[in-house]
Amino acid sequence: MARLTQQPRPLPNHVYYFDDKGADGNKDMKDILGGKGANLAEMCALGMPVPPGYTISSEVCSYYSHHNGRFPESLRDEMVVAIERMEKALGKEFGSIHNPLLVSVRSGARVSMPGMMDTVLNLGLNDETVEGLAKRSGNERFAWDSYRRFVQMFSDVVLEIGPDPGEHINPFSLALRKLKKRRKVANAIDLEVVDLKALVKSFKAIVLRRTGKDFPDKPADQLWAAIGAVFGSWNNDRAIAYREMHNIPSEWGTAVTVMAMVFGNMGEDSGTGVAFTRDPANGERRFYGEFLMNAQGEDVVAGIRTPEQIEKLEKLAPKAYKKLLRIQKKLERHYRDMQDLEFTIENGRLFMLQCRNGKRTGFASVRIAVDMVRERLITKQEALMRIDPEGLNQLLQPVFDPKDIEAAKKSGKLLTKGLNAGPGAASGMVCFHAVDAVALKAKGHDVILCREETSPEDIRGMQASKGILTARGGMTSHAALVARQMGKVCVAGAGECLIDYKKATMTVNGQVIREGDKISLNGTTGEVLMSALRTSPSAVLRHLFGPGRKKANDTVLAYEKLMSWADDYRTLGVRTNADQPDQCKTAIAFGAEGVGLTRTEHMFFEGRKIDAVREMILAADQEGRKKALRKLLPLQRKDFEGIFRAMEDRPVTIRTLDPPLHEFLPHEPKQMRKLAKDLGITAKALGAKIASLQEFNPMLGHRGCRLGITYPEITRMQARALFEAACKVAKETGIMPRPEIMIPLISTAKELELQAAIVHEVAAEVFTKKRFSVPYLVGTMIELPRAALTAGEIAQTAEFFSFGTNDLTQTTYGISRDDGGSFVPEYIDKEIMPNDPFATLDGSGVGRLMEIACADGRRTRRGMKLGICGEHGGDPASIQICQDLGLDYVSCSPYRVPIARLAAAQAAIARSL
Amino acid sequence: MARLTQQPRPLPNHVYYFDDKGADGNKDMKDILGGKGANLAEMCALGMPVPPGYTISSEVCSYYSHHNGRFPESLRDEMVVAIERMEKALGKEFGSIHNPLLVSVRSGARVSMPGMMDTVLNLGLNDETVEGLAKRSGNERFAWDSYRRFVQMFSDVVLEIGPDPGEHINPFSLALRKLKKRRKVANAIDLEVVDLKALVKSFKAIVLRRTGKDFPDKPADQLWAAIGAVFGSWNNDRAIAYREMHNIPSEWGTAVTVMAMVFGNMGEDSGTGVAFTRDPANGERRFYGEFLMNAQGEDVVAGIRTPEQIEKLEKLAPKAYKKLLRIQKKLERHYRDMQDLEFTIENGRLFMLQCRNGKRTGFASVRIAVDMVRERLITKQEALMRIDPEGLNQLLQPVFDPKDIEAAKKSGKLLTKGLNAGPGAASGMVCFHAVDAVALKAKGHDVILCREETSPEDIRGMQASKGILTARGGMTSHAALVARQMGKVCVAGAGECLIDYKKATMTVNGQVIREGDKISLNGTTGEVLMSALRTSPSAVLRHLFGPGRKKANDTVLAYEKLMSWADDYRTLGVRTNADQPDQCKTAIAFGAEGVGLTRTEHMFFEGRKIDAVREMILAADQEGRKKALRKLLPLQRKDFEGIFRAMEDRPVTIRTLDPPLHEFLPHEPKQMRKLAKDLGITAKALGAKIASLQEFNPMLGHRGCRLGITYPEITRMQARALFEAACKVAKETGIMPRPEIMIPLISTAKELELQAAIVHEVAAEVFTKKRFSVPYLVGTMIELPRAALTAGEIAQTAEFFSFGTNDLTQTTYGISRDDGGSFVPEYIDKEIMPNDPFATLDGSGVGRLMEIACADGRRTRRGMKLGICGEHGGDPASIQICQDLGLDYVSCSPYRVPIARLAAAQAAIARSL
Repeated sequence: MARLTQQPRPLPNHVYYFDDKGADGNKDMKDILGGKGANLAEMCALGMPVPPGYTISSEVCSYYSHHNGRFPESLRDEMVVAIERMEKALGKEFGSIHNPLLVSVRSGARVSMPGMMDTVLNLGLNDETVEGLAKRSGNERFAWDSYRRFVQMFSDVVLEIGPDPGEHINPFSLALRKLKKRRKVANAIDLEVVDLKALVKSFKAIVLRRTGKDFPDKPADQLWAAIGAVFGSWNNDRAIAYREMHNIPSEWGTAVTVMAMVFGNMGEDSGTGVAFTRDPANGERRFYGEFLMNAQGEDVVAGIRTPEQIEKLEKLAPKAYKKLLRIQKKLERHYRDMQDLEFTIENGRLFMLQCRNGKRTGFASVRIAVDMVRERLITKQEALMRIDPEGLNQLLQPVFDPKDIEAAKKSGKLLTKGLNAGPGAASGMVCFHAVDAVALKAKGHDVILCREETSPEDIRGMQASKGILTARGGMTSHAALVARQMGKVCVAGAGECLIDYKKATMTVNGQVIREGDKISLNGTTGEVLMSALRTSPSAVLRHLFGPGRKKANDTVLAYEKLMSWADDYRTLGVRTNADQPDQCKTAIAFGAEGVGLTRTEHMFFEGRKIDAVREMILAADQEGRKKALRKLLPLQRKDFEGIFRAMEDRPVTIRTLDPPLHEFLPHEPKQMRKLAKDLGITAKALGAKIASLQEFNPMLGHRGCRLGITYPEITRMQARALFEAACKVAKETGIMPRPEIMIPLISTAKELELQAAIVHEVAAEVFTKKRFSVPYLVGTMIELPRAALTAGEIAQTAEFFSFGTNDLTQTTYGISRDDGGSFVPEYIDKEIMPNDPFATLDGSGVGRLMEIACADGRRTRRGMKLGICGEHGGDPASIQICQDLGLDYVSCSPYRVPIARLAAAQAAIARSL
Repeated sequence: MARLTQQPRPLPNHVYYFDDKGADGNKDMKDILGGKGANLAEMCALGMPVPPGYTISSEVCSYYSHHNGRFPESLRDEMVVAIERMEKALGKEFGSIHNPLLVSVRSGARVSMPGMMDTVLNLGLNDETVEGLAKRSGNERFAWDSYRRFVQMFSDVVLEIGPDPGEHINPFSLALRKLKKRRKVANAIDLEVVDLKALVKSFKAIVLRRTGKDFPDKPADQLWAAIGAVFGSWNNDRAIAYREMHNIPSEWGTAVTVMAMVFGNMGEDSGTGVAFTRDPANGERRFYGEFLMNAQGEDVVAGIRTPEQIEKLEKLAPKAYKKLLRIQKKLERHYRDMQDLEFTIENGRLFMLQCRNGKRTGFASVRIAVDMVRERLITKQEALMRIDPEGLNQLLQPVFDPKDIEAAKKSGKLLTKGLNAGPGAASGMVCFHAVDAVALKAKGHDVILCREETSPEDIRGMQASKGILTARGGMTSHAALVARQMGKVCVAGAGECLIDYKKATMTVNGQVIREGDKISLNGTTGEVLMSALRTSPSAVLRHLFGPGRKKANDTVLAYEKLMSWADDYRTLGVRTNADQPDQCKTAIAFGAEGVGLTRTEHMFFEGRKIDAVREMILAADQEGRKKALRKLLPLQRKDFEGIFRAMEDRPVTIRTLDPPLHEFLPHEPKQMRKLAKDLGITAKALGAKIASLQEFNPMLGHRGCRLGITYPEITRMQARALFEAACKVAKETGIMPRPEIMIPLISTAKELELQAAIVHEVAAEVFTKKRFSVPYLVGTMIELPRAALTAGEIAQTAEFFSFGTNDLTQTTYGISRDDGGSFVPEYIDKEIMPNDPFATLDGSGVGRLMEIACADGRRTRRGMKLGICGEHGGDPASIQICQDLGLDYVSCSPYRVPIARLAAAQAAIARSL
């Protein structure tokens, strides 16, 4: 098996020049120039004051990494030409001892990517050129300060000289700190020239000691080394980690921009700053930014001096400020989006160093988009496409004050980080058992339920808690699923939490948390904090549920407008997964058009129901089961009544019993003894029965419709409860409920036939007895590969399909979501999977099965209703797949309904493009 | 949803008449006349002496069961006509008190079906017609004996009067027995007429007492009741059970044949018998049968009198015998198959009552088929198509003497029955632990290993045992899979066996079996017997492996001939699943052309290997793992050497490590303590590590290539061992091994890329070092739906696919084979599944995925090699699917290789038809 190395293909231009007369590139060339390079070219084309420079294309990055750190041959010549043009434009010379051209070297990928080497400033300085700079600027301190900065920065980021053993900061910072202390000055700016010179000397000595080589003196060597370092940094650990987190392909590579230096540190008429064309925090339409006079960019970032608000610049540099105002307006109009700018003022003259679409909060993104439509800057479609649906979470979930979080972290209160499984903010008392959570809540406490993992037994405790923290389980673990459906804050799979139920303690990295201690969960980031932070409900929620519908603020108004546009454009219906009337009400407020999944088993854990359920499971024969089911019937009927009342005439999909029966049985000795006593059997007999229900692979065991086949009386009871409830509600309210009965875990057409026959039979009985009937449908989950593969046959009975993509993903991939934790993260790391298939639908595997099922199902039953009720129903990327498959609706947890509405609109627009 | 009852469709003729002048039907009308009716019609058409009669079509059976036990209207009229024709043919009259026509009523489905109502004889007798019969026959005793038999039979099978409470036999037999005792006679035939009259009277009294109604006296009423009973019996429990076991659709229904009675009990010149045109036990070409003079058919069956060998008939009824000889020859030539005949001689005159293809043993089926080709009666294809491949088991497996089994059962030694998971016969000492099995074998004992279930830890014990008995698990449980591969006898899932490991006892239905007790397993039937029966190896095996290849007997010669024809006709290759050299040798003797699956993990349990494996699993880091793997390398290399030597230049598919790691760790406290000591860690730490490897759904967990991805050093070691072994064997023997490395549990193309890269890298290293190379392939199992769905992409790396249909069935259906036991049997009962999908490939689900994978795989890689290595590879019905899919080979356990060769030939022939 010969594996040949790829032949290098000839590269076209590698180097793209720009100055304020024009540019080789433009803003649409991000793929090869990176975001930074493309936007610099664009600003040049707009005639804005940008220092001259050039961008080396990202294709050179690929070449570099595939050729063991070598550059393409022609690059050197192209660079020579570009530098000559810069020299000509500025009348300076690279490496000149009289009037040296200094440059910055910056990385710039297609998308902004922290973790990569960022910037080297002042490149081109050495012991000779520094003198030229000093003379030319007439400012020796400035020249040597620039030189000192350069050596320090270059050694840090290009030579990658880290701290000496036993130290926490690199030797350059350490040397600087010591010198400042000795000189008793706070800032480097206050050091004398002689000190700066000494510093440069000592920095170079450090380089020699640490690398065994002299600091490179030749500007050309410096330049090549810096460019190589940028390309190399594309594949450093932090960059790779970031790419994995954000699904950025490693083939993209980064571009490098080499730009002539302008100096914000040339004196009090110089300065540097960053600005946004609108407020990135709340989206308000105002010019917003910060600056420092007599400083370079790094000083603003470093936070040693406190920057000034941008308005103050008007006094300090009126001409530059006026020009900046004009430029920012022009850029926003040109880019038709809020811009993030970097600028430098050199001796009163403004230079633009960067512009890009500005990052913003979820709040701001909604408001800016809606405002820009009003200002006729963008269309409604553009507004809808521009907003990250996940960002809406910020508008919906309870929040901490960011300052409080910052403060808590600074004082070492950050305990650990888990998966951000249920967004929002919660704080309260730690407790370890569901019953305790209920009891504490009854006493008026806010509770955080902490468990190894949760199970259906914990439902009431979860309901009683503000937030849920688990040590095990992923984004679709039981805790995560239920929490999202309840709209609870959840941090899942925080593996550093070692819970000891007996001692009622949780140890996190050596710190012991006891029952009753207060902690805070940031479900949006996955952070767990050892303090009780204050939370407040989101503005949207206060508006929707506040007393008398509180007066809406600007964000809420923008949100409502945006949602109405989303509803205009989307073609997918949006339903909710809800098991209780209050969840239904929340979902309707959020815009749900029906229920896509009611899990009847969740109802079974409430109050007296669990006793009857257990009696049924442990019954010796059918007669015993029927007796227990007769007790359950009125309770279950009441559950359904509540849901029908809440949903009115919206469709309600109700799934018959699904989980394996042992999930309903107690597993703790105390509870087992109690149950045995209640049932009048020995604890041993009960234990044996529970053990007999254990399975090797419960996910592939006796559950779903397999229960309804073995115990048809269960399906019968559920159908009876459902139809009796529907008739009652219809008669009492005059509004006709629309139940859709869904049979889970179908693998053969015959299973569905048998279960559907029971449902139809019970319906006929109830309708005859009540002399009343309600319209209803019987359909099935498609959640096993075989169901998808035989969908044509199943559709002969099924009146609708709902894709249960959680289970379908498990069986298609052969991965249990409870066990995948031991390798799925590594799979994503190694790019074996593009992302977690339980979070985003796997288009080529699971999606292909869905495609088969949709086509075959609709071939049998023309126009049959198709939906999805797996967790993917609330995931924007998956919603796009659902749109492409031609589904009728998606269904998701109540708090994700607005996200799904927006994502559905985006999917419809994307498909129409 | 309106569910209409089906409209009755008009039936054509319901009644098909026959007599020795000709018939309305013929042998090809089995679908509506049943086997019996069709063959009677055929014999009539051939001019053979058949009593006149008629057959009611099986379509009436469907009508009857869909119309609540009513008959189609026109049936009565058609019956009247048919009976008139019978009356005319015989000059008798149905219900006449002078010369009554008596009839038999028999069921007859398309295929013979025990469990249904079979026969009522002498129908038409009552207190009046009996007198006519007595007069006409001049034999009052005969007439009343016939009447007595009729009332008894009718009451039993039509009126279904069973034993009275507390009794074990029905009241009629009881009354007869009492009377015989009183009269001190052994047989009913010796009773006086007066006794027979009294018996009839008492029988009728019993009927009145038990049913509240008089025994039906009118012949017409008797006839309708009997016909109804036959149709009704189609749906009795036994018949349904039989159909399920043999996959007979319930729609088929049964026909009913009404035929004039002829009497073998009319005196010493009368008689009745059954015969075969060849010996059904060994296939020898000789007329073979038994008869009784002065008897009715039931006497032959009842076994009260011992029948005579058919040759004796020549003396007792020379004319009839001569005629019978002529007829049997003619019938065999006509049907071109061995026939099973029933005949009656009435006053010296021969009547044929039935003929059908005779049931035969596996031995006989092979010999008859081969002989008939030699006799130019059938073609080779026909010979091949005619043999049930499963029947070959009889020729291959060790056997008990059937008489020994019978005797053991009669003396109450049958303990229980489980699944016939590994065919053959074994007896030996009971032991409960693998280590004990090894120890006992070392002492020269034959051992039966009895376990709740087996695990890979038990492999050596299984190897040391003659047979394996498990209380849990199905046909594809670990015990069953391994046993078949080893060619061991296995009875699996014998749920009545309650094993107490602590006490070292097994309780079966109250009987306690202790360690050291002797039991016998009949792996062909699933029977477990409480005695040590003698076993002998099969003739084929004695021939293949006997010292100096023992002289073959006729069966063996026929077997070898048949197999050579099979090889001529089949297009599918046949490989074997084998982990050890001796298994390879057996498989080659049985005709295997290569290895389709070597499970490397089975090797890991031998001797010192398991210690190194455990050390590797429990290593704290990669370095520790590498150290342990270095110990494993030479051991694993030796394993591969043995296999390559055994297989010579045949392809050998070797699968890299597959099972979850915790399977290799001990779970019994004693072993855990020992291991902890060996590794120098605490038992608690070891326990924690073992617990951390536990999974909720291990089948969907961290196993297969996922291990090789997480621990690439394992794949590396296995590849190294393999290539080093291949080079060594090639150099030493001059024969080039052909390894095919197979990566398990692939779900994404990238997984395979990464694993294949390791294999290629190691191959290059080894080949360079050894200055030698062997050809090899790298391919993958297709055993997850996603692999099948993305096969086109996977085929870019995979050089072959092998379908792992065990796992593929599990994930496609969402059924764990370890847990399916709680509902799969019921599913087959309820016809939700046509059969156990783990035994026979599910064509529409799993088969469709395979079809996708074959098409997409070969689209990417033209002509790529496709095989199957799941248990289905040895199942004839599944082999047909493999043929239709265009696979290149099937692979199965060594003892199934001949079965697969024959089934492959049948599949090729069937496809060419």
